[in-house]
Amino acid sequence: MNDSTNSTSDTRLICTVDVVLLTLRDAQLQVLLLKRDREPFGGALALPGGYVHADEDQGCEDAAQRVLLQKAGLQSPYLEQLASFSGPARDPRGWSVSVAYFALVPAPESTQPGQLWLPVDRLPQLPFDHGRIVATAVERVRNKSQYSSLPVHLCPEPFTLPQLHAIYEALLGEAINPVSFRRKMDELAILEAVPGAKRAEGAHRPAQLYRLKDEFRQTLRVVGRGLNA
Amino acid sequence: MNDSTNSTSDTRLICTVDVVLLTLRDAQLQVLLLKRDREPFGGALALPGGYVHADEDQGCEDAAQRVLLQKAGLQSPYLEQLASFSGPARDPRGWSVSVAYFALVPAPESTQPGQLWLPVDRLPQLPFDHGRIVATAVERVRNKSQYSSLPVHLCPEPFTLPQLHAIYEALLGEAINPVSFRRKMDELAILEAVPGAKRAEGAHRPAQLYRLKDEFRQTLRVVGRGLNA
Repeated sequence: MNDSTNSTSDTRLICTVDVVLLTLRDAQLQVLLLKRDREPFGGALALPGGYVHADEDQGCEDAAQRVLLQKAGLQSPYLEQLASFSGPARDPRGWSVSVAYFALVPAPESTQPGQLWLPVDRLPQLPFDHGRIVATAVERVRNKSQYSSLPVHLCPEPFTLPQLHAIYEALLGEAINPVSFRRKMDELAILEAVPGAKRAEGAHRPAQLYRLKDEFRQTLRVVGRGLNA
Repeated sequence: MNDSTNSTSDTRLICTVDVVLLTLRDAQLQVLLLKRDREPFGGALALPGGYVHADEDQGCEDAAQRVLLQKAGLQSPYLEQLASFSGPARDPRGWSVSVAYFALVPAPESTQPGQLWLPVDRLPQLPFDHGRIVATAVERVRNKSQYSSLPVHLCPEPFTLPQLHAIYEALLGEAINPVSFRRKMDELAILEAVPGAKRAEGAHRPAQLYRLKDEFRQTLRVVGRGLNA
């Protein structure tokens, strides 16, 4: 077996990126879909995605950030590689590999024409293998959220600890003991108090406001745990 | 911006797979390297890898299994997607994306010509971005090993619990409380006793022999943990 005997069609394949952009609205995890303006699947709702541009992209993550900016108007959110999806049948244009990313953002105040946020557990059938990509992203996000800074990206800043607690609970779909939650947040050490900023909530005394430390805007912080933990 | 205006050279890129095959020898995590038989980097030690073949591969994982069989003589080990590595500079042949996988196998009894197992923390400089790919795989494996069935794939079957315990300790580079270890193994529920099979170890009475349950040979089992755990 010698790769140098392959024809060009074997070695140069369609390469795209797709982005699963997630937010929390109405206490539901929702995904951004865009109406496709061309074939294949013209008019269908699909994930923001596009070809890698060899002449301008420095890598697939770079391509994903470009796609997000061009198609969703979003600038450099925290983006994480999800997985690659590949094969001869997923794209009618030919054998393709799509490197998929996911990003979490606070609920946007407005939506542009052609954009739609839909709850991840009530999606219509999506073109390509986008349904599978979304499901993989949701599973990843929920798994990682239990022990990382990931959900903080869903929370508009600044926020109180009770607000952040509600975000974690909505995302994980379960009640979280508030004392455990504060301890985990201390352990993660990702938040900083906004000096002098407090917010009144209901009948309680005003609560301290927090924001994500700058060094964790592009890096995920994970609480380690071991077999001895 | 409309993708349909792109030239062909933008949309069809070099697509390869690379495999980080890991084993435990002399209580060290080691990686399989092969001497490259062609340019670029002819003669250099590198990860087993190759082009995706659109005419025969059903996806990148399929390509990775094919490469492992053809280049390392290994049939269908547990393989997990690691990440994609991409960009204009990583391969001198052009803009490329490599979908990398990792696999864990018991220490092989013999090595074929041109194959070399080297400790992951004492590697020479590797071609392409293979050094980075290996480092990413090692980090992933060590992180996941703390709470999954992953290290079992390093252990020749059948094995005793003390043998498996030693594998986890060597991989994680730390002492693991034997009682905690047995509890985690019970929780994972991935092992089955080999009926009637015991092995004498030192002055102790013979220990029960175990093997991985069939349903976990191609699937990873992870112990869940939550904020309330």
